Amino acid sequence: MKTTEMFAAHPRKLTLDTTVLAECINACVECADVCTSCADACLGEDSVQRLTRCIGINLDCADICQTTARILSRQTDVVTQLLRAQLESCVVSCRVCAQECEIHAEMHQHCRICRSACQNTEKICQEMISRLSEGARTSLL
Amino acid sequence: MKTTEMFAAHPRKLTLDTTVLAECINACVECADVCTSCADACLGEDSVQRLTRCIGINLDCADICQTTARILSRQTDVVTQLLRAQLESCVVSCRVCAQECEIHAEMHQHCRICRSACQNTEKICQEMISRLSEGARTSLL
Amino acid sequence: MKTTEMFAAHPRKLTLDTTVLAECINACVECADVCTSCADACLGEDSVQRLTRCIGINLDCADICQTTARILSRQTDVVTQLLRAQLESCVVSCRVCAQECEIHAEMHQHCRICRSACQNTEKICQEMISRLSEGARTSLL
Amino acid sequence: MKTTEMFAAHPRKLTLDTTVLAECINACVECADVCTSCADACLGEDSVQRLTRCIGINLDCADICQTTARILSRQTDVVTQLLRAQLESCVVSCRVCAQECEIHAEMHQHCRICRSACQNTEKICQEMISRLSEGARTSLL
Repeated sequence: MKTTEMFAAHPRKLTLDTTVLAECINACVECADVCTSCADACLGEDSVQRLTRCIGINLDCADICQTTARILSRQTDVVTQLLRAQLESCVVSCRVCAQECEIHAEMHQHCRICRSACQNTEKICQEMISRLSEGARTSLL
Repeated sequence: MKTTEMFAAHPRKLTLDTTVLAECINACVECADVCTSCADACLGEDSVQRLTRCIGINLDCADICQTTARILSRQTDVVTQLLRAQLESCVVSCRVCAQECEIHAEMHQHCRICRSACQNTEKICQEMISRLSEGARTSLL
Repeated sequence: MKTTEMFAAHPRKLTLDTTVLAECINACVECADVCTSCADACLGEDSVQRLTRCIGINLDCADICQTTARILSRQTDVVTQLLRAQLESCVVSCRVCAQECEIHAEMHQHCRICRSACQNTEKICQEMISRLSEGARTSLL
Repeated sequence: MKTTEMFAAHPRKLTLDTTVLAECINACVECADVCTSCADACLGEDSVQRLTRCIGINLDCADICQTTARILSRQTDVVTQLLRAQLESCVVSCRVCAQECEIHAEMHQHCRICRSACQNTEKICQEMISRLSEGARTSLL
């Protein structure tokens, strides 16, 4: 991904830590891709009947991660409260999706990979949220 | 929109009030469309330089409303906490977008329409959130 | 939908017929919503095993219709060839989705509604494409 | 990206070359991210007035690349004509976006990176289309 190069080429002075930011965008983008693929792989399983809840959550998580990545990529005028609310939604959807994929992880390798991508994205989004709070505190000094 | 007809044709017994649900989906879908158009109209204004913050927020709000509509449309296995977190993000983005469009409302009709669509969507999403909480309380009885 | 009002508020002189344009956007937006719901309803059916192909095509068609609606909404600088190529993809996905839903139409009301929304969107997208060609011919005179 | 791992974990025998497929998905996903960032960087430039066409095309190309990546990720029931039509739309939007960014490439590093991402994605999508045609020919033997 060219995320870091794009931030270096940005005309504005970016207020957020671009290393964490790029890591968070890349995690969301990858998680969206993995969730889309996991939904599709579940559809291809003979046991699809037992995977319908997993498919629904995969689809939700893919949409939420993709939107979160886009919001994070827009750095010209950051609205902290909007960014935080979407990151919090991403944390919830990744946690829910990781829990659901955990149930099928022993049976399906695609659910194992998806669980791991969701856990990673949840962690980085939480790190990103804590950076937003720091920024907010600093600007009050 | 065929949202209500689709819910009537759904194989599962839906737990949420489908009237509020359909109203909320339609508001989100319309708001996403209006925000996409408002960003485009702002790009076409001679005064685009003063509208860049509005464009950025329009784009964020369009993505968030669109994703919220999709999550709301998936009713086979509702995960209340995931739905609530995304609705809360939608409330914040609609409020922020309405406030930004308010600044340009006297000058631009497209910002007036967008402000009004965002205010409407914020209100219906909050109503939807309160219905989720009621559902949660009921299920604890 | 506020599509027509938004076009009336647009700062640029729009080159395309805004009545057909608004009708095409509304059809794409509605079709995206119906396809998302049809995929979800199929997931909720006991016979989901026989509906996996329908679900996959519903998801593809929802993404394509949604993107087509966004491209159509951006009228500040229309690139005719880009618009035509995306409309042609939308025509194909709506035709494929209508054919697939036709197979399940006798069994499932949601597939009947989806078939009809796809047929309608295919028709309006083709009308829109023919308007683009007329526009191109006119500009050569 | 975990695209290759996810294909290896897929329950169905995939008919397309998964190396080219993964490369094409990754190119589309990266291009969508770069286009979203380029639109945002253009919005932050003092010369935004001269970049409005670039912003509009960036936004279109981001939506089209993102949808193309999702269609490509769904491999349980591939509909070749639907995939080909969306890939052809992606080829057009990447070509148009590369040409527009070329105009601003001397001035803006973000347009140089975006041009290069679009050129790369156009090439890989064309390669993917030619593989689809081969597949179609093979299945006629």
